[in-house]
Amino acid sequence: NIPYEALEVGQTASYSKTVEERDIQLFAAMSGDHNPVHLDAEFAAASMFKERIAHGMFSGALISAAVACELPGPGTIYIGQQMSFQKPVKIGDTLTVRLEILEKLPKFRVRIATRVFNQRDELVVDGEAEILAPRKQQTVTLPTLPAIHGAKIGCPDVPATGFAGDGPFGIAMNEMTACGRSDWPPITM
Amino acid sequence: NIPYEALEVGQTASYSKTVEERDIQLFAAMSGDHNPVHLDAEFAAASMFKERIAHGMFSGALISAAVACELPGPGTIYIGQQMSFQKPVKIGDTLTVRLEILEKLPKFRVRIATRVFNQRDELVVDGEAEILAPRKQQTVTLPTLPAIHGAKIGCPDVPATGFAGDGPFGIAMNEMTACGRSDWPPITM
Repeated sequence: NIPYEALEVGQTASYSKTVEERDIQLFAAMSGDHNPVHLDAEFAAASMFKERIAHGMFSGALISAAVACELPGPGTIYIGQQMSFQKPVKIGDTLTVRLEILEKLPKFRVRIATRVFNQRDELVVDGEAEILAPRKQQTVTLPTLPAIHGAKIGCPDVPATGFAGDGPFGIAMNEMTACGRSDWPPITM
Repeated sequence: NIPYEALEVGQTASYSKTVEERDIQLFAAMSGDHNPVHLDAEFAAASMFKERIAHGMFSGALISAAVACELPGPGTIYIGQQMSFQKPVKIGDTLTVRLEILEKLPKFRVRIATRVFNQRDELVVDGEAEILAPRKQQTVTLPTLPAIHGAKIGCPDVPATGFAGDGPFGIAMNEMTACGRSDWPPITM
């Protein structure tokens, strides 16, 4: 990590992630946000976006990851976050969170620009974080990310009958069609 | 949903969820945010929080769910969100998002207070959303939430050997100890 003392205004870092079908499903399951514009292809086709979009707060989750893992990194405490959603994020988009140290405030507080761009370099989320920076330099061994082994994401009323993939993040969605969710394509990773 | 015309200043709604071990793991896996304060009991014990806490942006995900599913509900488009993290959220806490319509702006824009309280009625996140309200009343059938069947959340280098639970959100974490993550307790739901 980078402790408060070593942070400089203008310092930058970035963090990228491609938005996968899996991410949308996990976000919906975790938050309970089952807005059809994210999950229902037919509903989304009739919306102003013409196709399903990622949850806006999914970009928020990536900003959180960028701040906690890149700049300043582990030990950072989140105080506040402001986000302005500029453009929709589609499944398959590759998002890059760009961080820039804006201001060092007293008592270890730091303001950071948190802007998210897609693969066409369009700004999709503008915003700013306020954090408490780590006080001391620490060499932190990041916990391995939890892997999701052999999960099936399906409809609640259809029990899982098997699963594919047992590597990290192995997820099979091949039961989707069984509950008429053919718009949720099978995914095996 | 409640269309723009029917929204009134002062209108309220709420949405509650208990923060489960599973949610922390899913949030980490989905976002890539593996800050040890969320995942590593030993690291967290030495932090100012004394124990593991939920990702701040997890509360953001619940706010997103409240706005999208309760008030105004499906069809809502997120324009912006401001959050101020006031208190840590612990695993097992029951969070309630309380929404209140603050102001109706031109062109279907609406400002909503988005405050998150824990089970002791302490404000954990203060904030405000700006949204585009639905233009028309719609009866929307919410997609069933993706269920995660028989998932194992484990360490990436230990393949899953089986799983417990195949109901909605059936997750077994009983491989945790196999990679020394005894601080991630087994969970079967």
